[in-house]
Amino acid sequence: MAFLKNTWYVAALATEVGPVDLFHRKLLDTSVLLYRKQDGQAVAMRDRCPHRFAPLHLGKRDGDQVICGYHALKFDCSGKCTHNPHGDGRIPKAAQVQVYPLIERYGFLWIWMGDQPADESLLPDYSPLDDGPPSGIGHTYMYMKANYQLIIDNVMDLSHIDHVHGEAITTRGQLSPVVPEIRETDRSIFARWEWKQTPPILVLSHFLPDPQAEARHFFDVTWMPPANIQLSVGGAQGDTPFDQGVGAYDLHVTTPETENTTHYFFATRRNHLVDDEDFNQMKLKAMRDAFELEDGPIITGVQDEMGDEDFFDLKPVLMSNDAASVKVRRLHKRLLEAERAPVPGQASAPATPSNAEAAV
Amino acid sequence: MAFLKNTWYVAALATEVGPVDLFHRKLLDTSVLLYRKQDGQAVAMRDRCPHRFAPLHLGKRDGDQVICGYHALKFDCSGKCTHNPHGDGRIPKAAQVQVYPLIERYGFLWIWMGDQPADESLLPDYSPLDDGPPSGIGHTYMYMKANYQLIIDNVMDLSHIDHVHGEAITTRGQLSPVVPEIRETDRSIFARWEWKQTPPILVLSHFLPDPQAEARHFFDVTWMPPANIQLSVGGAQGDTPFDQGVGAYDLHVTTPETENTTHYFFATRRNHLVDDEDFNQMKLKAMRDAFELEDGPIITGVQDEMGDEDFFDLKPVLMSNDAASVKVRRLHKRLLEAERAPVPGQASAPATPSNAEAAV
Amino acid sequence: MAFLKNTWYVAALATEVGPVDLFHRKLLDTSVLLYRKQDGQAVAMRDRCPHRFAPLHLGKRDGDQVICGYHALKFDCSGKCTHNPHGDGRIPKAAQVQVYPLIERYGFLWIWMGDQPADESLLPDYSPLDDGPPSGIGHTYMYMKANYQLIIDNVMDLSHIDHVHGEAITTRGQLSPVVPEIRETDRSIFARWEWKQTPPILVLSHFLPDPQAEARHFFDVTWMPPANIQLSVGGAQGDTPFDQGVGAYDLHVTTPETENTTHYFFATRRNHLVDDEDFNQMKLKAMRDAFELEDGPIITGVQDEMGDEDFFDLKPVLMSNDAASVKVRRLHKRLLEAERAPVPGQASAPATPSNAEAAV
Repeated sequence: MAFLKNTWYVAALATEVGPVDLFHRKLLDTSVLLYRKQDGQAVAMRDRCPHRFAPLHLGKRDGDQVICGYHALKFDCSGKCTHNPHGDGRIPKAAQVQVYPLIERYGFLWIWMGDQPADESLLPDYSPLDDGPPSGIGHTYMYMKANYQLIIDNVMDLSHIDHVHGEAITTRGQLSPVVPEIRETDRSIFARWEWKQTPPILVLSHFLPDPQAEARHFFDVTWMPPANIQLSVGGAQGDTPFDQGVGAYDLHVTTPETENTTHYFFATRRNHLVDDEDFNQMKLKAMRDAFELEDGPIITGVQDEMGDEDFFDLKPVLMSNDAASVKVRRLHKRLLEAERAPVPGQASAPATPSNAEAAV
Repeated sequence: MAFLKNTWYVAALATEVGPVDLFHRKLLDTSVLLYRKQDGQAVAMRDRCPHRFAPLHLGKRDGDQVICGYHALKFDCSGKCTHNPHGDGRIPKAAQVQVYPLIERYGFLWIWMGDQPADESLLPDYSPLDDGPPSGIGHTYMYMKANYQLIIDNVMDLSHIDHVHGEAITTRGQLSPVVPEIRETDRSIFARWEWKQTPPILVLSHFLPDPQAEARHFFDVTWMPPANIQLSVGGAQGDTPFDQGVGAYDLHVTTPETENTTHYFFATRRNHLVDDEDFNQMKLKAMRDAFELEDGPIITGVQDEMGDEDFFDLKPVLMSNDAASVKVRRLHKRLLEAERAPVPGQASAPATPSNAEAAV
Repeated sequence: MAFLKNTWYVAALATEVGPVDLFHRKLLDTSVLLYRKQDGQAVAMRDRCPHRFAPLHLGKRDGDQVICGYHALKFDCSGKCTHNPHGDGRIPKAAQVQVYPLIERYGFLWIWMGDQPADESLLPDYSPLDDGPPSGIGHTYMYMKANYQLIIDNVMDLSHIDHVHGEAITTRGQLSPVVPEIRETDRSIFARWEWKQTPPILVLSHFLPDPQAEARHFFDVTWMPPANIQLSVGGAQGDTPFDQGVGAYDLHVTTPETENTTHYFFATRRNHLVDDEDFNQMKLKAMRDAFELEDGPIITGVQDEMGDEDFFDLKPVLMSNDAASVKVRRLHKRLLEAERAPVPGQASAPATPSNAEAAV
């Protein structure tokens, strides 16, 4: 399958890659090794020794370097082979592991797997996630047996909430009739729903002045390539403007493992009970349950029905609530086509570990 | 794989589809939803919402209608969308689920998945199954990891009985030497074996005048498309004609799930101990054991050996006992080719839920 | 996948095929039946009845013959059908199971699955395996989810020992720097490493005059087609020549089950404690642990990384320690191409059970 390549994907939660272990995960059909240098900086490289293709995560560390578990070639963090115990010890010029630019930000490790120099400016600004104590943000990871675009469809069309999810986030039927406001740029799709409900949405109601009275609510979702959706939810009562109300600032990110399996990463920051670890854990568990027990079976059911067929080829009956997710699919497709088109008057730049490394 | 389409397959035992639940099963590589209306009538439709392809069995019922579990589109039993909770509620013209004509008869639900109007006259007459009390008939369902034609081969060639099965139905070697009488029509293959044995076949002997004396026996099998085999077995002693002897009237039906997995349905009615529920259960268990523990391993073993290869391409060494099953394969192939051939001077009629529905 | 065919593969350990049971195993993508005649001689034939392709191992024995479990055709050890219980009992001329020449030698059953007459002279001489009591030799079988050539690569390049294996066979880093002496014939690749270490290699040290003093060591590996590697290891101290030292004479043999799954057979004979069954069992367990817990994960990890891609197409970075295994891959490829090339002026001889049989 074709994936966008010259862009930042989340490779792992920052907490998944500990100070010692060699962590590995398949991303975009490619096996990747992740570990932290002794100074704590995380690095990423192909999880494959260039000698005989042994997975490097089966080897061991030597300081900031990695020793292949098969024939003990040693590689530094630039992917350069630094030691060959065989024969006269000469190191073949080609003994080089492909390294990937990696940025640790917002509690995630972001990886660049493209053949162009990594462009840090393409990593969207999600700094509100950093704005507050650790006990006011939760991160989680889920594995889903579905194409990543089906998960993006799910989050870009929040009209499913009243039908898929339970009491905690019900809008009592107020959300579905709302036709969201949609805005599009050449690298983003934005949708916003606003509605009133009584009582307010349950996850926010206890933090509003009157938990039983009517509240105004909104959802904002902003997709940016390749597979990032920033979602904000808010509530306010009376004349209080939204920016003085209660709410949460979430990030949903998917990274394809293969065409039909996906790594799903999530972070949520709130502006209430911002320093309450018990509440944090409870909220995170509720989110996981919602994804895994409610969205999950539907999304994997859709995947099973679709098999390997293309979404548009199957002629979906599209409705007003599909506008944002369809715009995402179309923009994503244009970006993919642009990436794969030859640049006029220029040969395509092949991936070289050195230029990839230099970019970070 | 090509399957005959304009014909009746068994979708389920009547008892598998209860009064409340949404039942689903893959038939001919297509996911199908089955449920009963409040008046008890069973209905069948594609188990796929036309909006975003969520399996409808993950949704819920609203009276005789079904609500998709993803975005709550509601469909009636004709597959028509009757409610859209999104935006202005307008229902897209294409929001239509394909429905399949369904007939409940002989304890089975028979489904028509073809593109031509359902033709009830093509459902064979198995009314002897209805002739007697419920405790005189047993139905069962089995799942087999083999192509459905291998199961038909098995039943159309009963010469395997003495070699595969145990004491209960042994003919003591009398059956294999018999070359069956075979008759063929343009929609059926019939084979009949007659022989004598002492003592009689065990499942019938206790209901004959002298369980130790010689008896005359017969087996009849009649295949009709797509995958129905009516099998009768009988025994009589002395001058008693077969129609005054003891016997059973069985139906073996297979429905392909996929090319190499099959739903196997079975019913058996007897003319002795016709109202004995304990005997009924005992007999049904014995039949299941015979299929699953004796025929089953052989048939799936054959499947594993054949893989995806065509039976005739593998050049089987055919013998006299193969005549009936080979005639079935050839007739089945002719019917399949006829169905797929364009009708001169006529465009093929595409499936439309409305005409399919009208046909029943 | 293409496999060398006109050659001897190991089908089973001699002990795997008992005096009574019908043993079966898939070899070179073909299901094979193995059993012992009443005089103890093992025979091999295709595990597929020519009638309707039932696996013969689901049938039963009748003396030296096999009766198919489906319709009771009986076959003798030449694959000839000797009894047909159906109709008039005539035996179709084509009712013939393909038999494979089989030789029991060195504790293994060697099978010839090619279309040319079996050539016993192509079975290499491993008679040192027979030289001693049964308690001085161990045989074992392992199943590996990897292409068989990856296992050959592993054994032909012993430079991995210090990096993959533990204390028992460590050379303390002395082996990797040694560039082995390599010799090549038109049907073999030989490599030899010699080195010194203190203390000696642990599995041999206790049988040397001074277990703590320096010893001279060697490894010899000789590959012969299709997938046999004879490995010798030895150690000596002072002026003692190797042929008066301690050592072991091992055989590593792989037989492809499918392209990416392999039967791995192993035998080891030693010249010390040659009649000690407890030591024999301990040594065999250590070897199994080394293969399964140390080599195994690496080799299957390489397989997962390579998928269905060709080794050379993936451009491995080859080093001095790869010389022997690369020569094996190249010679193997030449032999394979030669086998598949048409012989000038001669039509290729198709496999016939009779000529295959005659050859043994």
